[in-house]
Amino acid sequence: MKVTILGCYAATPRTITNPTSQVLEIRNRMFLIDCGEGTQVQLRKHKIKFSKINHIFISHLHGDHLYGLIGLVSTYMLLNRVNALHIYGPKGVKEIILLQLKLSESYTSYGLYFHEIISKQPEIIFEDDAVKVTTVPLKHRIYTNGYLFQEKNKERKLNIEAVEKYEIDPIYYRKIKYGGNITLDDGTIIDNAQLTFDPEPAKSYAFCSDTIYDETLSEKIKDVDVLYHESTFLESEIALAEKTMHSTAKQAATIAKLANAKNLILGHYSTRYASIEKFKEEATQIFPNVFLGDDGKSFDF
Amino acid sequence: MKVTILGCYAATPRTITNPTSQVLEIRNRMFLIDCGEGTQVQLRKHKIKFSKINHIFISHLHGDHLYGLIGLVSTYMLLNRVNALHIYGPKGVKEIILLQLKLSESYTSYGLYFHEIISKQPEIIFEDDAVKVTTVPLKHRIYTNGYLFQEKNKERKLNIEAVEKYEIDPIYYRKIKYGGNITLDDGTIIDNAQLTFDPEPAKSYAFCSDTIYDETLSEKIKDVDVLYHESTFLESEIALAEKTMHSTAKQAATIAKLANAKNLILGHYSTRYASIEKFKEEATQIFPNVFLGDDGKSFDF
Repeated sequence: MKVTILGCYAATPRTITNPTSQVLEIRNRMFLIDCGEGTQVQLRKHKIKFSKINHIFISHLHGDHLYGLIGLVSTYMLLNRVNALHIYGPKGVKEIILLQLKLSESYTSYGLYFHEIISKQPEIIFEDDAVKVTTVPLKHRIYTNGYLFQEKNKERKLNIEAVEKYEIDPIYYRKIKYGGNITLDDGTIIDNAQLTFDPEPAKSYAFCSDTIYDETLSEKIKDVDVLYHESTFLESEIALAEKTMHSTAKQAATIAKLANAKNLILGHYSTRYASIEKFKEEATQIFPNVFLGDDGKSFDF
Repeated sequence: MKVTILGCYAATPRTITNPTSQVLEIRNRMFLIDCGEGTQVQLRKHKIKFSKINHIFISHLHGDHLYGLIGLVSTYMLLNRVNALHIYGPKGVKEIILLQLKLSESYTSYGLYFHEIISKQPEIIFEDDAVKVTTVPLKHRIYTNGYLFQEKNKERKLNIEAVEKYEIDPIYYRKIKYGGNITLDDGTIIDNAQLTFDPEPAKSYAFCSDTIYDETLSEKIKDVDVLYHESTFLESEIALAEKTMHSTAKQAATIAKLANAKNLILGHYSTRYASIEKFKEEATQIFPNVFLGDDGKSFDF
């Protein structure tokens, strides 16, 4: 599982920082999360293959999470994209994109599917044989969802020596990988544990931005491997965080602790701070495994 | 008169090139022309004071001329802009901007005025005591206008030595600057030519992008000082230029010649070319004063 932060600063794009966007790779699937202005340039800069992104998740309709989407949709058109593109986001995202395509008299060369979300309860919005994505309702100034990406259990790893020793026909390998026992011709039952090794544990990633400090959030992302939680402010600006419905670094760390997360990535920093090091200092007092998100940074878990 | 090219490449923004946007300064007025994705970052990069822009002109609703507008409007909001902002562009631009503001539940702190254009004939859309802006209907795949910016005649320059010699009361200086003659107490009439110098000639600038080669265009911008004319392609791609309703460098130069323009700036280059030098070579064969527009380049006239 790999996360590449394309942008993680709040509000307006600047020459040195970018608004929210990140790419999550799980089991060869590439998911784009949020799409602030300049996202397509960031994708190019970090040499991420546009064409491999088939699913885009938008947290909410504030500009610093959205304004790069229409440009990316248009660029796919110019690049003669063929694969279907799925966009998940709050109701309204479809109208915004289609209005602009209509007024520019443009038609996508590919299937463009919108999956608009209106529920205030968690719901599964994507699922295939390797990954499941569930919404994580957040509390912000407008309707907002985080997203929980959960890898499904992987197949068990075949113990080649063992299956060869018992001369098991390869047609049973699939059954074994999925946990089945094997009955030999003489009636002996070979327990699966003798034929396989444990797989790598399935991983999970929760993207939670933007949100006010909300303890109930921790229940929805319990035991997550990696939590990306916004930390727009430091604790010294907690009043401003409450007023604007954002969080502080300390609050992000508290949610990570309550959720029993394994790792925390911070981001969505206000551009008022000259350095982001203090965010880590503050969060580390509450929770140990803190990473500072920053534009262009990748994390492998 | 100063033109700063923020972006002058066709289609998609890239790490090294930007889509169309430019700033025209005339007599302390700052006009923004087109606003592709990334324009606000380009404004910051080239240290242009955002706040001085009160009028934005959009040529047409293709993304590479428009997708940075909503971000700029939003950033003005975050910066607590007070001055009114006027946006001129094809019908539809208002709906695009207001839909996005509505769905993000945002309200501008400043007056936001849309001046939508539907006419296929040139019309004056802006006028104050120093500058007049007229639409220049262009022929492109969708409804498109160029813009002709014409400086008004300046005041004549006072000949200080002369007015002091005749002991003329300063209350008449304004009259003299506007071309008036003066009658002295003894009845002598002093001709204005004796009291003033010619002012700097009024200048004009025509922005023409995007457009197919169209000879009738030259009549609408006759004798213009500076013509910015798109040259998406070289003559070797003329078939593609016709198909996509764009122009070649040679065609841009032909329009400059027919219009009796004094200078020509090229731009809106397709990103297929490794170097833009050939655009100048090709255009110079037809018209002498050719300048290559490029991102970040400024021209003083």
